[in-house]
Amino acid sequence: MSKRIAILGYGNWATTIAKVVGENVHKYSEFDTTIAMWVKPKEFNGRRLTDIINEDHENPRFLPNVKLPINVVAFSCLKDAVKNANILIFVTPHQMVEDVCTQIKGHVHEEAVGISLIKGMATKADGSASAISDEIRGHLNIDISVLMGANLAAEVATGGFAEATVGCIHPEHGEMFQRMFDTENFRINVVRDVYTVEMCGALKNIIACAVGFAEGLRFGTNAKAAIIRLGMHEMIKFIETFYPGSDLKTFFESCGLADLIATCEGGRNKRVCEAFVKSDKAMHEVEKEVIANGQSAQGPPTASEIYTILSQVGLEDSFPIFTVVHRICTRQVPASELKNCLKNHTLHQTVQSKEDSSSNSSGVSY
Amino acid sequence: MSKRIAILGYGNWATTIAKVVGENVHKYSEFDTTIAMWVKPKEFNGRRLTDIINEDHENPRFLPNVKLPINVVAFSCLKDAVKNANILIFVTPHQMVEDVCTQIKGHVHEEAVGISLIKGMATKADGSASAISDEIRGHLNIDISVLMGANLAAEVATGGFAEATVGCIHPEHGEMFQRMFDTENFRINVVRDVYTVEMCGALKNIIACAVGFAEGLRFGTNAKAAIIRLGMHEMIKFIETFYPGSDLKTFFESCGLADLIATCEGGRNKRVCEAFVKSDKAMHEVEKEVIANGQSAQGPPTASEIYTILSQVGLEDSFPIFTVVHRICTRQVPASELKNCLKNHTLHQTVQSKEDSSSNSSGVSY
Repeated sequence: MSKRIAILGYGNWATTIAKVVGENVHKYSEFDTTIAMWVKPKEFNGRRLTDIINEDHENPRFLPNVKLPINVVAFSCLKDAVKNANILIFVTPHQMVEDVCTQIKGHVHEEAVGISLIKGMATKADGSASAISDEIRGHLNIDISVLMGANLAAEVATGGFAEATVGCIHPEHGEMFQRMFDTENFRINVVRDVYTVEMCGALKNIIACAVGFAEGLRFGTNAKAAIIRLGMHEMIKFIETFYPGSDLKTFFESCGLADLIATCEGGRNKRVCEAFVKSDKAMHEVEKEVIANGQSAQGPPTASEIYTILSQVGLEDSFPIFTVVHRICTRQVPASELKNCLKNHTLHQTVQSKEDSSSNSSGVSY
Repeated sequence: MSKRIAILGYGNWATTIAKVVGENVHKYSEFDTTIAMWVKPKEFNGRRLTDIINEDHENPRFLPNVKLPINVVAFSCLKDAVKNANILIFVTPHQMVEDVCTQIKGHVHEEAVGISLIKGMATKADGSASAISDEIRGHLNIDISVLMGANLAAEVATGGFAEATVGCIHPEHGEMFQRMFDTENFRINVVRDVYTVEMCGALKNIIACAVGFAEGLRFGTNAKAAIIRLGMHEMIKFIETFYPGSDLKTFFESCGLADLIATCEGGRNKRVCEAFVKSDKAMHEVEKEVIANGQSAQGPPTASEIYTILSQVGLEDSFPIFTVVHRICTRQVPASELKNCLKNHTLHQTVQSKEDSSSNSSGVSY
């Protein structure tokens, strides 16, 4: 029996993925060609978004001027969308994960598998944070893979070249997701390092904030390249510390290096943080001024969640960029503190004085 | 006895390094505070450049508006500059290495050590190419370390933050060079992976050409991030193949990731290659139009040299970006071939058809 796919989400990335998967399923008999897409009941120009998607085959609210395949069918009821689905694609805003899981609990096919495309951390009411895949597993008790990469949605939707990384626990699921997503312009590599893939997608937004501060402070290209490099090290160290067993090679996949570079080149986090340096307002106010459409920058809340995790085990000082980004975002320290963070980063080797050096050689400062 | 340092070079990077080292030597009694700097006899505004440097303590031809320490002394004669020098800093254009080495051979202190700051490959008359450090070793039979990193000269010269990597064979030389170069705004890490550090500095320029072509072809951010990621893989694979024993961690140092990012963000190679796509002229003509000051872009010749090395052992197809950049630079293929190179890159995993898939599932194309 062919597998039925449900997409839980309706934003620009969800809609892009509906297009990719909706076209791809025709290539393999293992998939049911009808794709269910859960779309929150919203209005757009006086019509229901579900009706627009089902009648006009486009999502003008979140991905204008892109036609969807006719086999993508929008549902406004979550339970209807997941009914009999064998494969669930989670691609909601990260704040909605808990609510969505709670609603579909008990309605999910017992042999269903899922994949999360959501970048960020899941936070609980008590302030603790966890990987979103763990949040979904905890609610639904199903196998969850992840897909992350350098994937600006509008470019993927219009056929621009992109790569992505699937992280899976079971290789057969990874291969299935590769068939579901891989096209000649959207190339998927599969690795078994699921937490590394997922956490890269969350952590890179903190580094993009640091690059945004650097832009606002008029740092040069050398300094921005250093931030990205040192930031990559902190990503690796964080994942090695909290999700041991990662493979260094995974950081060279699209989910690692490429997504970090793409996010630091443009994107909301960088723009908001650049504006923040030139303002004396709070981050949420700057965010409102810089980002239209009610969207948010994930970097500042992720920095806060990571800071909470680090401070619980006393490791703030071992992750200087993660920590300084959180402190700058909350105006505990001025943005200029970023330069001291770079100069004194833990990754810099200590300069050894020679025994025959004169007395003024003991320190690095000059 | 304190060690005498000679800088062989007078361009913007050489002059920047003269400033850094000229200030740094006062911190350690191991160094003679007088720094010799070889400056080719050139005129600037009717005066000899050596006179300007020695009288006005600046190099307005190559690094205007930056004062040099008075302990940097310019010599127009190479042999005078290296006389009694214990430490030689090679920072000439890569084309001059052979000539400089030939001139100073027999005049170099027998226990002298050197460090190369030159990015590129050394080429011989027969078309063969080698690492510049090997070229220097071959001529002078002295120990050579290298220094590479994300180091736009003007930013380092004006105190902007930067990092660099020293690659050494003997740790005690690495530590000495760290003392010579490390300042609070120019942080040096030392690794023993000398060829990896050096080859990163040459190979990254080929990737910057590919990013330039991508700009000219109006590829998106996802595709450019993919080029940098796939390019990094080719750099790693090339170094593993031709200089075995490299440590993957070295690619996360400033010489690897950071220099690649900085070079792909700006720089001559990218600008020339972007203009090349929009023109039908030969590369050397486009170069003349785009770059003032008679400077050149290292990427196209490096791509040619690397292509020669690869084709000698039949490995062209294993390095698709290196190869396509050379073929595009020489107009053997149109620039649009870059997109096919990305789609079909050897690093992309093959999509496995399921046994139960229908007959139209055998290929990836759709």
